[in-house]
Amino acid sequence: MEFTAQEIADLIEGTIEGRPDVAVHDVSKIENGRPGTLSFLANPKYTPYLYSTEASIVIINDDVHLNGDKKINSTLIRTPDAYSAFAKLLETYNKKREPQAGIADTAIVSSKAHIGKGVYIGDYVVIEEGASIGDNAQLYPYTFIGRDTSIGRSSKLYIGVKIYHDCNIGQNCTIHAGTVIGSDGFGFAPQQMQDYKKIPQIGNVIIEDNVEIGTNCTIDRATMGSTVIRKGVKLDNLIQVAHNVYIGENTVIAAQTGISGSSTIGRNCMLGGQVGVAGHLEIADEVKIGAQSGISGHIREKGATVLGSPAYDISAFKRAFTYFRNLPKIVKRIESLEKKLKDRQENK
Amino acid sequence: MEFTAQEIADLIEGTIEGRPDVAVHDVSKIENGRPGTLSFLANPKYTPYLYSTEASIVIINDDVHLNGDKKINSTLIRTPDAYSAFAKLLETYNKKREPQAGIADTAIVSSKAHIGKGVYIGDYVVIEEGASIGDNAQLYPYTFIGRDTSIGRSSKLYIGVKIYHDCNIGQNCTIHAGTVIGSDGFGFAPQQMQDYKKIPQIGNVIIEDNVEIGTNCTIDRATMGSTVIRKGVKLDNLIQVAHNVYIGENTVIAAQTGISGSSTIGRNCMLGGQVGVAGHLEIADEVKIGAQSGISGHIREKGATVLGSPAYDISAFKRAFTYFRNLPKIVKRIESLEKKLKDRQENK
Amino acid sequence: MEFTAQEIADLIEGTIEGRPDVAVHDVSKIENGRPGTLSFLANPKYTPYLYSTEASIVIINDDVHLNGDKKINSTLIRTPDAYSAFAKLLETYNKKREPQAGIADTAIVSSKAHIGKGVYIGDYVVIEEGASIGDNAQLYPYTFIGRDTSIGRSSKLYIGVKIYHDCNIGQNCTIHAGTVIGSDGFGFAPQQMQDYKKIPQIGNVIIEDNVEIGTNCTIDRATMGSTVIRKGVKLDNLIQVAHNVYIGENTVIAAQTGISGSSTIGRNCMLGGQVGVAGHLEIADEVKIGAQSGISGHIREKGATVLGSPAYDISAFKRAFTYFRNLPKIVKRIESLEKKLKDRQENK
Repeated sequence: MEFTAQEIADLIEGTIEGRPDVAVHDVSKIENGRPGTLSFLANPKYTPYLYSTEASIVIINDDVHLNGDKKINSTLIRTPDAYSAFAKLLETYNKKREPQAGIADTAIVSSKAHIGKGVYIGDYVVIEEGASIGDNAQLYPYTFIGRDTSIGRSSKLYIGVKIYHDCNIGQNCTIHAGTVIGSDGFGFAPQQMQDYKKIPQIGNVIIEDNVEIGTNCTIDRATMGSTVIRKGVKLDNLIQVAHNVYIGENTVIAAQTGISGSSTIGRNCMLGGQVGVAGHLEIADEVKIGAQSGISGHIREKGATVLGSPAYDISAFKRAFTYFRNLPKIVKRIESLEKKLKDRQENK
Repeated sequence: MEFTAQEIADLIEGTIEGRPDVAVHDVSKIENGRPGTLSFLANPKYTPYLYSTEASIVIINDDVHLNGDKKINSTLIRTPDAYSAFAKLLETYNKKREPQAGIADTAIVSSKAHIGKGVYIGDYVVIEEGASIGDNAQLYPYTFIGRDTSIGRSSKLYIGVKIYHDCNIGQNCTIHAGTVIGSDGFGFAPQQMQDYKKIPQIGNVIIEDNVEIGTNCTIDRATMGSTVIRKGVKLDNLIQVAHNVYIGENTVIAAQTGISGSSTIGRNCMLGGQVGVAGHLEIADEVKIGAQSGISGHIREKGATVLGSPAYDISAFKRAFTYFRNLPKIVKRIESLEKKLKDRQENK
Repeated sequence: MEFTAQEIADLIEGTIEGRPDVAVHDVSKIENGRPGTLSFLANPKYTPYLYSTEASIVIINDDVHLNGDKKINSTLIRTPDAYSAFAKLLETYNKKREPQAGIADTAIVSSKAHIGKGVYIGDYVVIEEGASIGDNAQLYPYTFIGRDTSIGRSSKLYIGVKIYHDCNIGQNCTIHAGTVIGSDGFGFAPQQMQDYKKIPQIGNVIIEDNVEIGTNCTIDRATMGSTVIRKGVKLDNLIQVAHNVYIGENTVIAAQTGISGSSTIGRNCMLGGQVGVAGHLEIADEVKIGAQSGISGHIREKGATVLGSPAYDISAFKRAFTYFRNLPKIVKRIESLEKKLKDRQENK
């Protein structure tokens, strides 16, 4: 897809300085712009790049003053807010690449499912009976929607997302390829012969509005009741959310983190990558957990920041870790003390 | 799906106290019962909740004595063993939700595959030549069974499980969505140009009876011979089992743990989440490994419990970790000693 | 599939000692050879097994001298280089098991896609418009190739690999089942109401030639520009590669490792399993990172070997860790010093 400066200017209602017919097919950062790309200048500290960038088109703020002595190779488009205009453009661009509404011939949609208006249902999608797909939802190829599961309107489920029966996904959610929602929680009762009996997992998963979930994540259904992900939560890739977990509003979790069964994460928390949270714990609101931390006890203090495995206050951990690195020296100091004391003993 | 108290009482051969026509559509724990839900009382310490729960129906033991002074809102169903009756009910409930036997029109089943009786083969399943599916097995949509792979009877493979060629899955196994079994082990021989040559992986994977494997796990085939998971093993989600690994009977492994190539895990072991086991190691029977531990050497002691990265005896680790947290104080004590000694030196 | 000693000898141009009609259906290591299997002897220290192995056929070097006093049960095939002959045989064997070229009836291939010669496109594959599949590429069932994505020739994409739009995969690449390439990077801009606005991810993923990627990995597209994996890189299973990451030539990464956004890994590096690399970091060439390490700062020294979370020089870490384990003893030494000093104080 190509756009000319004129087309972009029309779209963002900007003013052109330079050639209106120059075309772009990609975007770039201004500091490493290439011919054929579109860039923008929002942060004044990047202004010097305006004179060196090879980007074919740069969107700039109305109030940028140019240094007339220096040559600019790019076509400029002026607008009141360059960043917003650029973001709007990207959204328009992405929208254009979205699939058109319609149901593929190879999709298998139960006659007992409810399908809203304007939905896209791709090839080889399976929607079981009692399922409900909201208006304008997008189900990419191989999406599986189990019995009695509902998908809110304008939600996007990418390739091969699999949602078991009886789950609820809110509106405007985005779930990336390969993620599985509603599989059985990990529950087994030990038996006398040292083997285990499966505990039936008959709860479900509830995901509220505006949640984004990355690729190949696993979100288990509750043993009873619901595994709950509140509105605005953002999960990165390969994250494990066990049965009966609760994640509060707008909490953000980085890749490969795992939350064990029945733990509760507060709202507006930030969890780094590869964090592990043990089962049946409570994490307060606004808590920050450093990457690779292991949480083995409650965190009751709102806004606490922790690190380590097991994790505790991040500053204290960092201080202790500095001493850890210095342990060889510390032990030398002890040896020196021991020697001095021994020498005195002998010299007495 | 709704059940009345009468229907439930008939199913578990219990006696009703209260309204036989009250109906439930979900289950709940007695301490947070809601109208329209079924609960049970098995543990005597929860008896007080009997008088406060809002669950519409509660299953209780025959021998529970009620306090006549207190009002009970729920309909009660008495039975000799409330928990067993409840569990039986759940199983019945889950069975009713299982797909019916039959082969979907869109399944592609090789004419050279063997298909047992009473199997369910869902939409878009692919079964290649030489594969064998045991009686009453359930293959949910998009399951892939490669050439010459066999699935034991009554095993369930959920949505999108992918099993490469030549593998054997036992009876009564449950494998959750997106799990891949039999992909190539990670084997490359360094070459002179600092690049690598792939070592062909021609072994397979053998999984015995009653094994449960969670969602999006990866279990690689052996370079030669077999990667083996013995009967009764339970694996949680996102677990990596490398080529030529052996996992003993009834061992339980929590989410996101990885076992490197050619390592052997004993029977009845318990591995926490996010554990890493290096390659070519032997772990004895009944060993317990705490979450996030890193195993870099053999564990030969049966029943050992370890923690840490690298991991060692859990009590010793915890003790050392307490001192780690106190390192700033410990160093202060050393400074104080140094000062005292210096002062004396000078005061002599 | 069975081979006789005669057929194998013909294939590798070797000389038979023993029965030419004995047949094998599997391979084994010489030390645990079983009847019906083929083995090889390359490493002289394994020579004693030649007299005890039950392998039906063993390939040996021309120059192996046999001990005439001891009986050998296997049929031997002599060749100048036993290991190379065995490897060649395995490749031939694997090639025979590969699917034949052709496009399955159930594959949905856009008329606007370019399909090379000799390709295998399995059941339920979806190839969108503008995509390009190189000659002799193999796309196993359920592979998804998004719009304008190109796959180089002779690359193999196993079951259910999902590649979003606009990505480039090189030649001779192997990507295992369930891996997702090109999903959105994890980018969100905080808003005033403590919620987040998604940053459109309009870059792509570029994977060069001879790259192998394991099972259920996730490789995100760049926010802008490209996430780049250079030629010869080998990734194990369940690995997370975030947006705008760059991985240099021939770097090898073990399972469950995660690389955060915009980090650069040098060439010929080796990363152990479950390693975490934070965002915006630079790792020099030939760096080795021990399993479970956490990288929170640049590693600028070529060839450095690090361990720990946070990681630093491996020898220094191991030394410090030894002291960590001894912390209880170290504190006892401090207590002893304190006591001695106190005693003297009092005894003065």
